[in-house]
Amino acid sequence: MKTVGIIGGTGNIGEGLARRICLGGKYDVIIGSREAPKAVTAADGVVCCLKEKKCTSTTCSGSANADVCSADIIIISLPFERVESTIASIGKEKFENKVIVSLINPMIRNPAEKYFLPDRPKIGSAALAIKEMLPASAKLFTAFNNVAAGKWMQLDEELDYSVAVCGDDGEAKKTVMDLVASVSKLHPLDAGPLENAATIEGLTPLVITIAMRNGLKDVGVYFR
Amino acid sequence: MKTVGIIGGTGNIGEGLARRICLGGKYDVIIGSREAPKAVTAADGVVCCLKEKKCTSTTCSGSANADVCSADIIIISLPFERVESTIASIGKEKFENKVIVSLINPMIRNPAEKYFLPDRPKIGSAALAIKEMLPASAKLFTAFNNVAAGKWMQLDEELDYSVAVCGDDGEAKKTVMDLVASVSKLHPLDAGPLENAATIEGLTPLVITIAMRNGLKDVGVYFR
Repeated sequence: MKTVGIIGGTGNIGEGLARRICLGGKYDVIIGSREAPKAVTAADGVVCCLKEKKCTSTTCSGSANADVCSADIIIISLPFERVESTIASIGKEKFENKVIVSLINPMIRNPAEKYFLPDRPKIGSAALAIKEMLPASAKLFTAFNNVAAGKWMQLDEELDYSVAVCGDDGEAKKTVMDLVASVSKLHPLDAGPLENAATIEGLTPLVITIAMRNGLKDVGVYFR
Repeated sequence: MKTVGIIGGTGNIGEGLARRICLGGKYDVIIGSREAPKAVTAADGVVCCLKEKKCTSTTCSGSANADVCSADIIIISLPFERVESTIASIGKEKFENKVIVSLINPMIRNPAEKYFLPDRPKIGSAALAIKEMLPASAKLFTAFNNVAAGKWMQLDEELDYSVAVCGDDGEAKKTVMDLVASVSKLHPLDAGPLENAATIEGLTPLVITIAMRNGLKDVGVYFR
Protein backbone atom coordinates (compact mmCIF):
# COMPACT_ATOMS: atom_id res chain seq x y z
CA MET A 1 0.00 0.00 0.00
CA LYS A 2 1.32 3.45 -0.86
CA THR A 3 1.58 6.04 1.87
CA VAL A 4 0.68 9.72 1.86
CA GLY A 5 2.34 12.06 4.33
CA ILE A 6 0.65 15.32 5.25
CA ILE A 7 2.97 18.05 6.54
CA GLY A 8 0.83 20.31 8.68
CA GLY A 9 -1.77 17.61 8.96
CA THR A 10 -3.35 18.82 12.19
CA GLY A 11 -5.18 21.77 10.66
CA ASN A 12 -8.80 21.46 9.59
CA ILE A 13 -7.93 20.82 5.98
CA GLY A 14 -5.05 18.45 6.76
CA GLU A 15 -7.14 16.36 9.13
CA GLY A 16 -10.13 16.23 6.82
CA LEU A 17 -7.84 15.28 3.96
CA ALA A 18 -6.30 12.49 6.07
CA ARG A 19 -9.75 11.09 6.81
CA ARG A 20 -10.92 11.32 3.22
CA ILE A 21 -7.75 9.70 1.86
CA CYS A 22 -7.90 6.82 4.36
CA LEU A 23 -11.60 6.32 3.73
CA GLY A 24 -10.82 6.06 0.01
CA GLY A 25 -9.15 2.80 1.00
CA LYS A 26 -6.08 3.04 -1.21
CA TYR A 27 -3.44 4.87 0.84
CA ASP A 28 -2.12 4.75 4.38
CA VAL A 29 -1.62 8.22 5.82
CA ILE A 30 1.05 9.73 8.06
CA ILE A 31 -0.02 12.98 9.68
CA GLY A 32 2.86 15.31 10.45
CA SER A 33 3.08 18.24 12.83
CA ARG A 34 5.77 20.45 14.36
CA GLU A 35 4.75 18.79 17.62
CA ALA A 36 4.61 15.02 17.22
CA PRO A 37 2.06 14.51 20.06
CA LYS A 38 -0.41 16.75 18.24
CA ALA A 39 0.00 14.61 15.16
CA VAL A 40 -0.56 11.44 17.17
CA THR A 41 -3.77 12.88 18.62
CA ALA A 42 -4.98 13.86 15.16
CA ALA A 43 -4.14 10.39 13.81
CA ASP A 44 -6.05 8.81 16.71
CA GLY A 45 -9.07 10.83 15.58
CA VAL A 46 -8.70 9.49 12.06
CA VAL A 47 -8.33 5.89 13.27
CA CYS A 48 -11.46 6.31 15.38
CA CYS A 49 -13.33 7.67 12.37
CA LEU A 50 -12.13 4.76 10.21
CA LYS A 51 -13.48 2.34 12.81
CA GLU A 52 -16.83 4.10 12.88
CA LYS A 53 -17.05 3.90 9.11
CA LYS A 54 -15.88 0.26 9.23
CA CYS A 55 -12.93 1.03 6.99
CA THR A 56 -10.26 -1.58 7.71
CA SER A 57 -8.11 -1.37 4.61
CA THR A 58 -6.00 1.62 5.60
CA THR A 59 -4.23 3.04 8.61
CA CYS A 60 -3.23 6.45 9.91
CA SER A 61 -0.32 7.37 12.17
CA GLY A 62 1.07 10.62 13.53
CA SER A 63 4.65 11.83 13.77
CA ALA A 64 6.93 14.84 13.59
CA ASN A 65 6.90 16.59 10.21
CA ALA A 66 10.35 15.21 9.37
CA ASP A 67 9.17 11.57 9.52
CA VAL A 68 6.43 12.28 7.01
CA CYS A 69 9.07 12.35 4.28
CA SER A 70 9.26 8.56 4.21
CA ALA A 71 5.85 8.59 2.49
CA ASP A 72 5.46 8.00 -1.25
CA ILE A 73 3.55 11.25 -1.71
CA ILE A 74 3.95 14.30 0.51
CA ILE A 75 1.18 16.87 0.81
CA ILE A 76 2.16 20.28 2.16
CA SER A 77 -0.80 21.72 4.04
CA LEU A 78 0.69 24.77 5.76
CA PRO A 79 0.15 28.51 5.65
CA PHE A 80 2.45 29.75 2.87
CA GLU A 81 4.57 31.81 5.23
CA ARG A 82 5.52 28.69 7.21
CA VAL A 83 6.61 26.54 4.26
CA GLU A 84 10.18 27.76 3.92
CA SER A 85 11.09 27.40 7.61
CA THR A 86 9.38 24.00 7.79
CA ILE A 87 11.33 22.65 4.82
CA ALA A 88 14.53 24.03 6.36
CA SER A 89 13.83 22.43 9.75
CA ILE A 90 13.01 19.05 8.14
CA GLY A 91 16.07 19.26 5.90
CA LYS A 92 15.78 20.05 2.21
CA GLU A 93 17.57 16.82 1.26
CA LYS A 94 14.65 14.78 2.62
CA PHE A 95 12.61 15.97 -0.34
CA GLU A 96 15.01 14.67 -3.02
CA ASN A 97 13.08 12.84 -5.80
CA LYS A 98 9.84 13.07 -3.86
CA VAL A 99 6.36 13.59 -5.29
CA ILE A 100 5.02 16.62 -3.45
CA VAL A 101 1.60 18.26 -3.55
CA SER A 102 0.84 21.84 -2.53
CA LEU A 103 -2.74 22.85 -1.83
CA ILE A 104 -1.67 26.27 -0.61
CA ASN A 105 -3.47 29.43 -1.74
CA PRO A 106 -1.99 32.57 -0.18
CA MET A 107 -4.78 35.11 0.23
CA ILE A 108 -5.40 38.73 1.18
CA ARG A 109 -8.54 38.68 3.28
CA ASN A 110 -10.95 41.61 3.27
CA PRO A 111 -14.22 40.32 4.70
CA ALA A 112 -15.35 43.86 5.61
CA GLU A 113 -15.49 44.74 1.93
CA LYS A 114 -16.52 41.24 1.00
CA TYR A 115 -13.60 40.16 -1.08
CA PHE A 116 -10.52 37.97 -0.90
CA LEU A 117 -7.67 38.32 -3.36
CA PRO A 118 -4.72 36.08 -4.19
CA ASP A 119 -1.54 37.16 -2.39
CA ARG A 120 0.84 36.04 -5.11
CA PRO A 121 4.55 35.81 -4.36
CA LYS A 122 6.66 37.81 -6.85
CA ILE A 123 7.52 34.70 -8.84
CA GLY A 124 3.82 34.33 -9.71
CA SER A 125 2.41 31.67 -7.41
CA ALA A 126 3.01 29.86 -4.14
CA ALA A 127 3.74 26.72 -6.16
CA LEU A 128 6.56 28.34 -8.13
CA ALA A 129 7.94 29.85 -4.91
CA ILE A 130 7.84 26.48 -3.12
CA LYS A 131 9.55 24.83 -6.11
CA GLU A 132 12.49 27.18 -5.48
CA MET A 133 12.64 26.05 -1.84
CA LEU A 134 12.85 22.34 -2.79
CA PRO A 135 15.67 20.30 -4.35
CA ALA A 136 15.65 20.33 -8.17
CA SER A 137 14.83 16.60 -8.15
CA ALA A 138 11.57 17.09 -6.22
CA LYS A 139 8.41 16.78 -8.32
CA LEU A 140 6.01 19.43 -7.17
CA PHE A 141 2.31 19.58 -8.07
CA THR A 142 -0.73 21.57 -7.06
CA ALA A 143 -3.94 19.70 -6.31
CA PHE A 144 -6.90 19.92 -3.92
CA ASN A 145 -6.52 23.74 -3.89
CA ASN A 146 -10.13 24.67 -4.54
CA VAL A 147 -12.05 22.26 -2.34
CA ALA A 148 -13.88 24.45 0.19
CA ALA A 149 -12.03 24.15 3.51
CA GLY A 150 -15.27 23.53 5.40
CA LYS A 151 -16.13 20.52 3.25
CA TRP A 152 -13.18 18.29 4.10
CA MET A 153 -14.47 17.32 7.53
CA GLN A 154 -18.12 16.90 6.52
CA LEU A 155 -17.65 13.23 5.85
CA ASP A 156 -21.29 12.50 5.16
CA GLU A 157 -21.10 14.68 2.08
CA GLU A 158 -19.40 13.47 -1.06
CA LEU A 159 -16.97 15.88 -2.69
CA ASP A 160 -17.75 15.87 -6.40
CA TYR A 161 -15.59 18.79 -7.54
CA SER A 162 -13.16 19.10 -10.41
CA VAL A 163 -9.57 19.12 -9.16
CA ALA A 164 -7.07 20.75 -11.48
CA VAL A 165 -3.61 19.18 -11.16
CA CYS A 166 -0.64 21.28 -12.31
CA GLY A 167 2.94 20.09 -12.52
CA ASP A 168 5.77 19.35 -14.89
CA ASP A 169 6.53 15.62 -14.52
CA GLY A 170 4.16 13.48 -16.60
CA GLU A 171 4.77 10.20 -14.81
CA ALA A 172 4.47 11.62 -11.30
CA LYS A 173 1.38 13.58 -12.36
CA LYS A 174 -0.37 10.29 -12.98
CA THR A 175 0.48 9.32 -9.37
CA VAL A 176 -1.07 12.55 -8.08
CA MET A 177 -4.16 12.21 -10.26
CA ASP A 178 -4.67 8.66 -8.96
CA LEU A 179 -4.49 10.01 -5.41
CA VAL A 180 -7.08 12.69 -6.22
CA ALA A 181 -9.38 10.14 -7.85
CA SER A 182 -9.24 7.99 -4.70
CA VAL A 183 -10.82 10.74 -2.58
CA SER A 184 -14.61 10.84 -2.42
CA LYS A 185 -15.90 11.72 -5.91
CA LEU A 186 -13.20 14.22 -6.76
CA HIS A 187 -12.52 14.39 -10.47
CA PRO A 188 -8.83 15.01 -11.33
CA LEU A 189 -7.97 16.95 -14.48
CA ASP A 190 -4.51 17.47 -15.93
CA ALA A 191 -4.25 21.26 -15.94
CA GLY A 192 -0.82 21.58 -17.51
CA PRO A 193 2.48 22.88 -16.18
CA LEU A 194 3.15 24.19 -12.68
CA GLU A 195 3.07 27.67 -14.15
CA ASN A 196 -0.73 27.38 -14.47
CA ALA A 197 -0.94 27.06 -10.67
CA ALA A 198 -1.26 30.85 -10.34
CA THR A 199 -4.79 30.60 -11.70
CA ILE A 200 -5.68 27.58 -9.54
CA GLU A 201 -4.43 29.36 -6.42
CA GLY A 202 -6.43 32.46 -7.39
CA LEU A 203 -9.62 30.46 -7.69
CA THR A 204 -9.97 29.95 -3.95
CA PRO A 205 -10.08 33.66 -3.04
CA LEU A 206 -12.36 34.09 -6.06
CA VAL A 207 -14.91 31.48 -4.96
CA ILE A 208 -14.82 32.80 -1.39
CA THR A 209 -15.58 36.24 -2.82
CA ILE A 210 -18.38 34.79 -4.94
CA ALA A 211 -19.81 33.02 -1.88
CA MET A 212 -19.75 36.20 0.24
CA ARG A 213 -21.30 38.37 -2.45
CA ASN A 214 -23.97 36.06 -3.80
CA GLY A 215 -25.40 34.56 -0.63
CA LEU A 216 -23.79 31.17 -1.24
CA LYS A 217 -21.75 28.82 0.96
CA ASP A 218 -18.79 26.56 0.26
CA VAL A 219 -18.78 27.32 -3.47
CA GLY A 220 -17.11 24.60 -5.53
CA VAL A 221 -15.44 24.69 -8.92
CA TYR A 222 -16.39 22.50 -11.84
CA PHE A 223 -14.73 22.29 -15.24
CA ARG A 224 -16.90 20.42 -17.73
CA MET B 1 -34.72 49.58 -24.79
CA LYS B 2 -31.10 49.72 -23.67
CA THR B 3 -28.38 49.31 -26.25
CA VAL B 4 -25.17 47.30 -26.14
CA GLY B 5 -22.27 48.28 -28.37
CA ILE B 6 -19.63 45.72 -29.26
CA ILE B 7 -16.25 47.13 -30.26
CA GLY B 8 -14.63 44.50 -32.44
CA GLY B 9 -17.97 42.90 -33.03
CA THR B 10 -17.10 41.18 -36.28
CA GLY B 11 -14.94 38.46 -34.76
CA ASN B 12 -16.42 35.06 -33.96
CA ILE B 13 -17.00 35.89 -30.32
CA GLY B 14 -18.32 39.40 -31.01
CA GLU B 15 -20.78 38.20 -33.61
CA GLY B 16 -21.99 35.29 -31.54
CA LEU B 17 -22.37 37.60 -28.58
CA ALA B 18 -24.41 40.04 -30.69
CA ARG B 19 -26.75 37.24 -31.73
CA ARG B 20 -27.11 35.87 -28.24
CA ILE B 21 -27.77 39.30 -26.73
CA CYS B 22 -30.39 40.20 -29.37
CA LEU B 23 -32.04 36.79 -29.02
CA GLY B 24 -32.29 37.43 -25.29
CA GLY B 25 -34.83 40.07 -26.30
CA LYS B 26 -33.77 42.79 -23.87
CA TYR B 27 -31.08 44.84 -25.64
CA ASP B 28 -30.56 46.31 -29.07
CA VAL B 29 -27.04 45.79 -30.32
CA ILE B 30 -24.64 47.97 -32.31
CA ILE B 31 -21.78 46.03 -33.83
CA GLY B 32 -18.63 48.10 -34.30
CA SER B 33 -15.63 47.50 -36.52
CA ARG B 34 -12.58 49.42 -37.75
CA GLU B 35 -14.26 49.14 -41.14
CA ALA B 36 -17.91 50.16 -40.93
CA PRO B 37 -18.97 48.07 -43.97
CA LYS B 38 -17.73 44.92 -42.24
CA ALA B 39 -19.84 45.83 -39.21
CA VAL B 40 -22.90 46.39 -41.42
CA THR B 41 -22.42 42.97 -43.01
CA ALA B 42 -22.09 41.34 -39.58
CA ALA B 43 -25.21 43.14 -38.36
CA ASP B 44 -27.11 41.96 -41.46
CA GLY B 45 -26.19 38.44 -40.46
CA VAL B 46 -27.58 39.01 -36.98
CA VAL B 47 -30.81 40.52 -38.35
CA CYS B 48 -31.23 37.55 -40.64
CA CYS B 49 -30.71 35.19 -37.69
CA LEU B 50 -33.25 37.10 -35.60
CA LYS B 51 -35.80 36.74 -38.42
CA GLU B 52 -35.13 33.01 -38.63
CA LYS B 53 -35.64 32.67 -34.91
CA LYS B 54 -38.75 34.89 -35.10
CA CYS B 55 -37.26 37.33 -32.64
CA THR B 56 -38.86 40.72 -33.28
CA SER B 57 -38.19 42.53 -30.02
CA THR B 58 -34.64 43.65 -30.71
CA THR B 59 -32.56 45.05 -33.53
CA CYS B 60 -28.93 45.04 -34.60
CA SER B 61 -27.02 47.61 -36.61
CA GLY B 62 -23.41 48.00 -37.70
CA SER B 63 -21.15 51.04 -37.63
CA ALA B 64 -17.60 52.25 -37.17
CA ASN B 65 -16.17 51.51 -33.73
CA ALA B 66 -16.49 55.18 -32.72
CA ASP B 67 -20.28 55.18 -33.11
CA VAL B 68 -20.63 52.24 -30.75
CA CYS B 69 -19.93 54.58 -27.85
CA SER B 70 -23.48 55.93 -27.94
CA ALA B 71 -24.60 52.61 -26.45
CA ASP B 72 -25.53 52.20 -22.77
CA ILE B 73 -23.06 49.36 -22.30
CA ILE B 74 -19.90 48.92 -24.34
CA ILE B 75 -18.28 45.51 -24.73
CA ILE B 76 -14.67 45.46 -25.85
CA SER B 77 -14.10 42.29 -27.87
CA LEU B 78 -10.63 42.85 -29.32
CA PRO B 79 -7.25 41.17 -29.06
CA PHE B 80 -5.56 42.82 -26.07
CA GLU B 81 -2.78 44.30 -28.20
CA ARG B 82 -5.32 46.27 -30.25
CA VAL B 83 -7.22 47.83 -27.34
CA GLU B 84 -4.98 50.82 -26.68
CA SER B 85 -4.81 51.97 -30.32
CA THR B 86 -8.56 51.43 -30.77
CA ILE B 87 -9.42 53.55 -27.74
CA ALA B 88 -7.03 56.23 -29.00
CA SER B 89 -8.54 56.24 -32.48
CA ILE B 90 -12.10 56.44 -31.12
CA GLY B 91 -11.10 59.15 -28.65
CA LYS B 92 -10.68 58.44 -24.97
CA GLU B 93 -13.28 61.09 -24.03
CA LYS B 94 -16.02 59.02 -25.71
CA PHE B 95 -15.71 56.58 -22.82
CA GLU B 96 -16.38 59.12 -20.05
CA ASN B 97 -18.87 57.70 -17.50
CA LYS B 98 -19.54 54.66 -19.64
CA VAL B 99 -20.22 51.12 -18.45
CA ILE B 100 -17.63 49.01 -20.23
CA VAL B 101 -17.13 45.25 -20.30
CA SER B 102 -13.90 43.47 -21.19
CA LEU B 103 -14.00 39.80 -22.09
CA ILE B 104 -10.34 39.81 -23.07
CA ASN B 105 -7.97 37.04 -21.93
CA PRO B 106 -4.43 37.56 -23.23
CA MET B 107 -2.84 34.14 -23.71
CA ILE B 108 0.46 32.49 -24.51
CA ARG B 109 -0.39 29.60 -26.80
CA ASN B 110 1.69 26.43 -26.81
CA PRO B 111 -0.46 23.79 -28.53
CA ALA B 112 2.61 21.66 -29.34
CA GLU B 113 3.16 21.06 -25.63
CA LYS B 114 -0.56 21.11 -24.94
CA TYR B 115 -0.82 24.14 -22.74
CA PHE B 116 -1.95 27.74 -22.81
CA LEU B 117 -0.91 30.24 -20.14
CA PRO B 118 -2.21 33.69 -19.23
CA ASP B 119 -0.10 36.46 -20.76
CA ARG B 120 -0.61 38.92 -17.94
CA PRO B 121 0.39 42.56 -18.43
CA LYS B 122 2.76 43.80 -15.72
CA ILE B 123 -0.07 45.49 -13.82
CA GLY B 124 -1.60 42.05 -13.23
CA SER B 125 -4.43 41.65 -15.74
CA ALA B 126 -5.74 42.94 -19.06
CA ALA B 127 -8.63 44.51 -17.14
CA LEU B 128 -6.34 46.58 -14.90
CA ALA B 129 -4.27 47.59 -17.95
CA ILE B 130 -7.38 48.65 -19.90
CA LYS B 131 -8.62 50.62 -16.90
CA GLU B 132 -5.45 52.71 -17.20
CA MET B 133 -6.25 53.40 -20.86
CA LEU B 134 -9.75 54.70 -20.08
CA PRO B 135 -10.91 57.93 -18.41
CA ALA B 136 -11.15 57.69 -14.61
CA SER B 137 -14.94 58.07 -14.85
CA ALA B 138 -15.35 54.94 -16.98
CA LYS B 139 -16.76 51.92 -15.14
CA LEU B 140 -14.89 48.88 -16.32
CA PHE B 141 -15.95 45.28 -15.68
CA THR B 142 -14.93 41.83 -16.80
CA ALA B 143 -17.65 39.39 -17.87
CA PHE B 144 -18.19 36.63 -20.43
CA ASN B 145 -14.44 35.81 -20.26
CA ASN B 146 -14.70 32.07 -19.82
CA VAL B 147 -17.44 31.11 -22.25
CA ALA B 148 -15.76 28.82 -24.80
CA ALA B 149 -15.25 30.84 -28.00
CA GLY B 150 -16.70 28.08 -30.14
CA LYS B 151 -19.96 28.08 -28.21
CA TRP B 152 -21.14 31.61 -28.95
CA MET B 153 -22.21 30.87 -32.51
CA GLN B 154 -23.79 27.46 -31.77
CA LEU B 155 -27.18 29.03 -31.24
CA ASP B 156 -29.03 25.77 -30.84
CA GLU B 157 -27.10 25.11 -27.67
CA GLU B 158 -27.95 26.93 -24.46
CA LEU B 159 -25.01 28.42 -22.55
CA ASP B 160 -25.52 27.46 -18.91
CA TYR B 161 -22.15 28.54 -17.50
CA SER B 162 -21.33 30.61 -14.45
CA VAL B 163 -20.12 34.09 -15.44
CA ALA B 164 -17.96 35.83 -12.87
CA VAL B 165 -18.37 39.62 -13.02
CA CYS B 166 -15.55 41.72 -11.58
CA GLY B 167 -15.59 45.49 -11.16
CA ASP B 168 -15.58 48.29 -8.63
CA ASP B 169 -18.87 50.17 -9.13
CA GLY B 170 -21.75 48.46 -7.35
CA GLU B 171 -24.58 50.17 -9.23
CA ALA B 172 -23.09 49.61 -12.67
CA LYS B 173 -22.23 46.04 -11.75
CA LYS B 174 -25.94 45.37 -11.41
CA THR B 175 -26.34 46.65 -14.98
CA VAL B 176 -23.67 44.25 -16.23
CA MET B 177 -25.09 41.31 -14.28
CA ASP B 178 -28.53 41.99 -15.78
CA LEU B 179 -26.96 41.92 -19.23
CA VAL B 180 -25.26 38.58 -18.50
CA ALA B 181 -28.50 37.12 -17.16
CA SER B 182 -30.30 38.08 -20.39
CA VAL B 183 -28.02 35.85 -22.47
CA SER B 184 -29.10 32.22 -22.89
CA LYS B 185 -28.88 30.55 -19.48
CA LEU B 186 -25.72 32.29 -18.31
CA HIS B 187 -25.60 32.69 -14.57
CA PRO B 188 -23.94 35.94 -13.41
CA LEU B 189 -22.05 36.01 -10.13
CA ASP B 190 -20.59 39.06 -8.41
CA ALA B 191 -16.90 38.12 -8.19
CA GLY B 192 -15.66 41.21 -6.40
CA PRO B 193 -13.34 44.00 -7.43
CA LEU B 194 -11.65 44.41 -10.81
CA GLU B 195 -8.45 43.17 -9.18
CA ASN B 196 -9.91 39.64 -9.13
CA ALA B 197 -10.04 39.74 -12.95
CA ALA B 198 -6.51 38.28 -13.12
CA THR B 199 -7.92 34.94 -12.03
CA ILE B 200 -10.92 35.14 -14.38
CA GLU B 201 -8.64 35.92 -17.31
CA GLY B 202 -6.37 33.04 -16.33
CA LEU B 203 -9.27 30.59 -16.36
CA THR B 204 -9.60 30.61 -20.13
CA PRO B 205 -6.05 29.39 -20.87
CA LEU B 206 -6.56 26.95 -17.98
CA VAL B 207 -9.75 25.40 -19.39
CA ILE B 208 -8.20 25.23 -22.87
CA THR B 209 -5.26 23.37 -21.31
CA ILE B 210 -7.65 21.08 -19.47
CA ALA B 211 -9.56 20.40 -22.70
CA MET B 212 -6.38 19.59 -24.65
CA ARG B 213 -4.98 17.31 -21.97
CA ASN B 214 -8.08 15.42 -20.91
CA GLY B 215 -9.73 14.70 -24.25
CA LEU B 216 -12.49 17.26 -23.70
CA LYS B 217 -13.95 20.00 -25.89
CA ASP B 218 -15.23 23.48 -25.10
CA VAL B 219 -14.76 23.08 -21.35
CA GLY B 220 -16.99 25.41 -19.32
CA VAL B 221 -16.61 26.82 -15.81
CA TYR B 222 -19.19 26.42 -13.07
CA PHE B 223 -19.11 27.89 -9.59
CA ARG B 224 -21.71 26.29 -7.36
